Amino acid sequence: MNVEILTIGNEILIGKTQDTNSNWMAKRITKYGHRLKRITTIGDDLDEISTTLKEILARKPDMIITTGGLGPTFDDMTLEGIAKGLKREIVLNQHAFNSIKKAYESATRRGILKLEGMTKERKKMAYLPRGSTPLPNTVGTAPGVKLTEKNTTIFILPGVPAEMKSMFRTVITPLLKETKGKFIERGFIFTGIGESQIAPYITQIEEEYPQLWIKTHPRIGLSVEVELSVTCFNVENDVELVENAIKKAKKIVHNLNGKIKTE
Amino acid sequence: MNVEILTIGNEILIGKTQDTNSNWMAKRITKYGHRLKRITTIGDDLDEISTTLKEILARKPDMIITTGGLGPTFDDMTLEGIAKGLKREIVLNQHAFNSIKKAYESATRRGILKLEGMTKERKKMAYLPRGSTPLPNTVGTAPGVKLTEKNTTIFILPGVPAEMKSMFRTVITPLLKETKGKFIERGFIFTGIGESQIAPYITQIEEEYPQLWIKTHPRIGLSVEVELSVTCFNVENDVELVENAIKKAKKIVHNLNGKIKTE
Repeated sequence: MNVEILTIGNEILIGKTQDTNSNWMAKRITKYGHRLKRITTIGDDLDEISTTLKEILARKPDMIITTGGLGPTFDDMTLEGIAKGLKREIVLNQHAFNSIKKAYESATRRGILKLEGMTKERKKMAYLPRGSTPLPNTVGTAPGVKLTEKNTTIFILPGVPAEMKSMFRTVITPLLKETKGKFIERGFIFTGIGESQIAPYITQIEEEYPQLWIKTHPRIGLSVEVELSVTCFNVENDVELVENAIKKAKKIVHNLNGKIKTE
Repeated sequence: MNVEILTIGNEILIGKTQDTNSNWMAKRITKYGHRLKRITTIGDDLDEISTTLKEILARKPDMIITTGGLGPTFDDMTLEGIAKGLKREIVLNQHAFNSIKKAYESATRRGILKLEGMTKERKKMAYLPRGSTPLPNTVGTAPGVKLTEKNTTIFILPGVPAEMKSMFRTVITPLLKETKGKFIERGFIFTGIGESQIAPYITQIEEEYPQLWIKTHPRIGLSVEVELSVTCFNVENDVELVENAIKKAKKIVHNLNGKIKTE
């Protein structure tokens, strides 16, 4: 599957908050053999959200995951923006309404909140684009949303990391696991060789194994980290492929009088 | 100025590397009174870089900053991608060539690198889109690039944080400082009040002070962080504006029997 992430939040664009959600999700999307193609971060702006969603949909990813902008305040406008982008109405979802109500009642009972009952702002979180499936939020109050538009599944998750992670694990991980792809990665640090010195040999390996993605990173001192990875759906053959490429890389390093430091 | 960041690197999309560059730059762009409108992260792919650059240019930002993909290896293709997006040739830049050569000679002299001389891969880093001004890299070897396309200034910086930061400080910070805008931010934590309880009052303040960007974050327990900020070019008046809005917010909190915890 091709996946895109859309991060929504002024706090990220002003540098107040470091977006750690995308990295957390990227690891998992990759691990289960899928491809994260793009991460886009925009502010809490209705037109910006709607326009950006349309741009992403035009690239036809299999999955879009948005984070942020689901809270009760006026600057949380993700659901409205997504609805606008999809040209769908925003309608009160009774399941979402009930779960929000329950969350606030429970918070009031436990003394975490003073004000019981559904204010206008709390009710706002239950207005979802038509066709939405609300996703339960077991950590916070704002429900997430699952939507389908043509061949793209859209997941709208909260920006609070604990809430995002819990919802991702419950709803998205099982979906990612369904397809049997696997991401195989092997890496070494070579010492005694610099990055630009090893570059022509890496090109040679890449030409021989076009399925592999090979990346070199310079390390402190005269050493270089070489990573070989492949996303495969025929796991056995691809493991062999990676192993063969690694053998070749090692041989080259030995011929250049380099040493393998870690594997 | 409106600014967009374009982050280029497969290592970010597979989740191996957390992009900290964008957050670091976002803070500085904001601090000097400018507006970061969007952050886009894509992989090391020629067409992807070229297409995305064209998309960003169509939004007419005053400044685009790209990071990543300037190294000597085959998967570093930012310069070629940018050139393609701008429909410009890629040509050997003698200044860039000399500075790369010097950096490698010095590294070899200090025993950091074994191989002296300009290999094909090292020379690659000196091929810049026509019309480029190379930016010296005092930390690493790959030079950065400054380009102008219509009314947009494009800065192409390395992805290695130390190299990016050094180049940003030398070349971009002075430019950001030239315009005299200022970002004013004030925040409090209120206790005894929840986020959704304070929301209608915040809306009230926002209506009265449309220039302000007000954001509330729920905090653990019955408390909420309220931030007020404004990007202003008439600093004295705007400081007064923020102070007035703050006074009003405090009054509301007192009326609600909330307490101000920190300022």
